[in-house]
Amino acid sequence: MIALAVDLGGSHAACAVVNGEVVLACEHIELAHAHGLMAALPALSAALQRAVVKAGVALTDCAGVAFSFCGLVDPVRRRVTSTNAKYDDAPGIDFEAWARSEFDLPLRIDNDARLALLGERQAGAATGFDDIVMVTLGTGVGGAAMMGARLVRGRHYQAGCLGGHLLARYGGRECTCGARGCIEAEASTWALPEMCREHPAFAASPLAYLPKIGFEELLRCAGGGDVCAAEVFRRCLDVWSAGVVALIHAYDPEVVIMGGGVMSAADQILPAITEYVRQRAWTPWGQVQVRRAALGNTAALLGAVPLLEDASIE
Amino acid sequence: MIALAVDLGGSHAACAVVNGEVVLACEHIELAHAHGLMAALPALSAALQRAVVKAGVALTDCAGVAFSFCGLVDPVRRRVTSTNAKYDDAPGIDFEAWARSEFDLPLRIDNDARLALLGERQAGAATGFDDIVMVTLGTGVGGAAMMGARLVRGRHYQAGCLGGHLLARYGGRECTCGARGCIEAEASTWALPEMCREHPAFAASPLAYLPKIGFEELLRCAGGGDVCAAEVFRRCLDVWSAGVVALIHAYDPEVVIMGGGVMSAADQILPAITEYVRQRAWTPWGQVQVRRAALGNTAALLGAVPLLEDASIE
Repeated sequence: MIALAVDLGGSHAACAVVNGEVVLACEHIELAHAHGLMAALPALSAALQRAVVKAGVALTDCAGVAFSFCGLVDPVRRRVTSTNAKYDDAPGIDFEAWARSEFDLPLRIDNDARLALLGERQAGAATGFDDIVMVTLGTGVGGAAMMGARLVRGRHYQAGCLGGHLLARYGGRECTCGARGCIEAEASTWALPEMCREHPAFAASPLAYLPKIGFEELLRCAGGGDVCAAEVFRRCLDVWSAGVVALIHAYDPEVVIMGGGVMSAADQILPAITEYVRQRAWTPWGQVQVRRAALGNTAALLGAVPLLEDASIE
Repeated sequence: MIALAVDLGGSHAACAVVNGEVVLACEHIELAHAHGLMAALPALSAALQRAVVKAGVALTDCAGVAFSFCGLVDPVRRRVTSTNAKYDDAPGIDFEAWARSEFDLPLRIDNDARLALLGERQAGAATGFDDIVMVTLGTGVGGAAMMGARLVRGRHYQAGCLGGHLLARYGGRECTCGARGCIEAEASTWALPEMCREHPAFAASPLAYLPKIGFEELLRCAGGGDVCAAEVFRRCLDVWSAGVVALIHAYDPEVVIMGGGVMSAADQILPAITEYVRQRAWTPWGQVQVRRAALGNTAALLGAVPLLEDASIE
């Protein structure tokens, strides 16, 4: 099956033509989420059209458009139901009408971590599994779950994809979602600068002199012996490890796939989480595998075909 | 449908005959879980036989035996898969053979919180709902979830029923399940004495002079103005409230049912949780209802008929 695929990130979008497990062509465009998604639709259409030309396929060969959105989505009504500080105009957009008028194709849309899970199962680190938890460590912490070969969606389509908004610490940090102490609020790229500033050794840390604090900077300083950076990173590992155990307890998977930009430092993250899961998860049946995502940025694009084939929608 | 029902608690068992939503007869017996469950089976059989006589039914009128167990259960193989300090010999018991030889009836077995959820949906606080989270506050914290009218069971049948073992505080208290900082480890009857002893004002609290500290004692002391008791209870409310939001984020229910012995103080518990959920849960579709369980100790017994009718088993 050939499909068009859009993977919308906070500051960019990937617009692709995929054939099963292969990305035939992909166009990357810069976007400013502050300007809204409606204003970006013409650029998305144009990028998809360019990808179609590059791929050398005809639109009539394509089964549909699969749209990956960074927020809560109702995949049956093809609507965004809630955003979290990105593309706040998205709930008002009729994506189905857009795909019909631009490409004369049907459209499906779902949460980006769900698409990434489908992609990793189709062609990445989760092939052969039917019970999967996906965690994406990035600006925020995304999540998705599959049980018995079906995506966990829930009554209002928000189950599974709030993995980053399970609890890490009651009474903890304010989260962008409205709750407190979420995994994402306790250990994610957006939470990192404040975590560092609150550390008692921050003023003496090289972090205090950097224009921006991300995990790359944190790990560089920690590697150089900085106590503040090392302790904040250790705390992030503790949050992610305990959070992964909570997700295992919630969804009973066989494998947990860790993806997202922060996982470019997988060597420093995965062993700690794996060991914590081995020691702490209550899984009398055996061991949950913890794996690094294999597809990087193409995971959500490769989720396009399984999303379009998902018989549980409609 | 008429069924035999066993609800096994840590120190007692209820053995009943139920007809749909009605308990026709019920025999309560004392048990010592330390002696194991195998040794208790003859007493359970005898109690069920007495209940059958009392109810005035014939065994041939009964559709089967439904067994509610306080641990992890494989409902397809009819086996206990893991215990948590109660009836540790249970994984070795062939419940199906027991029911066949004692009553010539088929048997189904599942986790006690799952049975309680089925009971509350059949005849209690969750009637009319298909998307339900059940939380039982007692010695431990039990949980169960239903999505789209199906119990959440998972690959190894342990999904949903580990609600009390979602995370409340990373790096927190050791839990009996092997993890740390579980909701149950941070706020349950078994965790309470240590929580109190660790409070700085414990030595000056009347709690220090009581032979036993449970929620009844805690609330009595808190009501009398004791700071230690009031602060520990406040902390429990914080844990349960944030934990319920985590369960809502995990399973996307329409209603959360709060049961268990601790809920005899529902007036002092439910308003705080309800208000926290109203303020903090990310549910753009509307409000999750938080309700007190309606059936008390009979919930798991009234789950018997829906368990025996559950088409997803076998």
